[in-house]
Amino acid sequence: MTRVVEFFFDFGSPTVYLAATQLPGIAEQAGATIDWRPMLLGGVFKATGNQSPVMVPAKGTYMGADLARFATRYGVPYKRNPFFPVNTLALMRGAVAYRASDRFKAYRDAIFRAMWVEPCNLNEPEIIGKVLTDAGFDSGDFMARIAEQSVKDELKANTEEAVERGAFGAPTFFVDGQMFFGQDRLDFVAEALDA
Amino acid sequence: MTRVVEFFFDFGSPTVYLAATQLPGIAEQAGATIDWRPMLLGGVFKATGNQSPVMVPAKGTYMGADLARFATRYGVPYKRNPFFPVNTLALMRGAVAYRASDRFKAYRDAIFRAMWVEPCNLNEPEIIGKVLTDAGFDSGDFMARIAEQSVKDELKANTEEAVERGAFGAPTFFVDGQMFFGQDRLDFVAEALDA
Repeated sequence: MTRVVEFFFDFGSPTVYLAATQLPGIAEQAGATIDWRPMLLGGVFKATGNQSPVMVPAKGTYMGADLARFATRYGVPYKRNPFFPVNTLALMRGAVAYRASDRFKAYRDAIFRAMWVEPCNLNEPEIIGKVLTDAGFDSGDFMARIAEQSVKDELKANTEEAVERGAFGAPTFFVDGQMFFGQDRLDFVAEALDA
Repeated sequence: MTRVVEFFFDFGSPTVYLAATQLPGIAEQAGATIDWRPMLLGGVFKATGNQSPVMVPAKGTYMGADLARFATRYGVPYKRNPFFPVNTLALMRGAVAYRASDRFKAYRDAIFRAMWVEPCNLNEPEIIGKVLTDAGFDSGDFMARIAEQSVKDELKANTEEAVERGAFGAPTFFVDGQMFFGQDRLDFVAEALDA
């Protein structure tokens, strides 16, 4: 039986980015598949009363050091995004829209890179357009897809489902009904996949 | 040169308890010493605008599972304290008062056990008294010590120093000027001590 790890994510979270660099290797090692579940982190915060750690200034400062330490440990590039927090509504609708296509990985990679490696101001529609064009996407196609009601509805439904199942932030993982929060719990995710 | 890890702690935090079960072994392994720094977590929260994770109900629920997972991993006993959150002012003043004595470990062990293993209602002075008496302390001596102005001042100074140095919660560790937050960063503390 192939095991599944559900990965509720939002591009706007740097810990989601770090998780996305590690989870594919963990899943492969365990012979598991990743079910990418786009959600809107802002919606999760609103529904649960949670907030971004950066709302507490001392926590935000520490988080910068903590993210850099994990990036070094993982050997992946990471830069603080000076435009953070970014409104990711269009980007997450795009994740829903491309999720079933063979271009989904290319889409994720382009957005994660633009958000946490370059990093760009993805609050600006024209910058999103350029990032997608550079990655071989048709930005007109993107705009049409994210305007579809079914896409909007699915993102909303994913977000509501995450909250109903206990999520209060991102990244959130589920393995066999067990929830794990944070890229710093990937070792527990790996253990659950191996169990 | 013997290395030092400063451990800013408050008995009222379950993650501090978990850290306290692991840090002595980590320090011993690294040939390092622990500088136990009692502070008042409530004071840190007030100064930084941070709050206990349990203030977000979904986070509190998840934290219960997370703490149990770490306790299992570490092989240590842990029970949710139904009287949480506990006002730890007297207990932390006690930590300051006994810190330089050869009974400091016995004091810590008694309070951690009463708080996170039994667990008792340490909001009640008579229960604190019983816990200390059972551990071989003179509760009159305890009351006299925690009433000393120098003890009160030192706890306040420790708390202010922690905040000045960037702390926003507990446990907080410092190794060579690097700050680490959370019992889930003990692997980074160990790396810093080995560096």
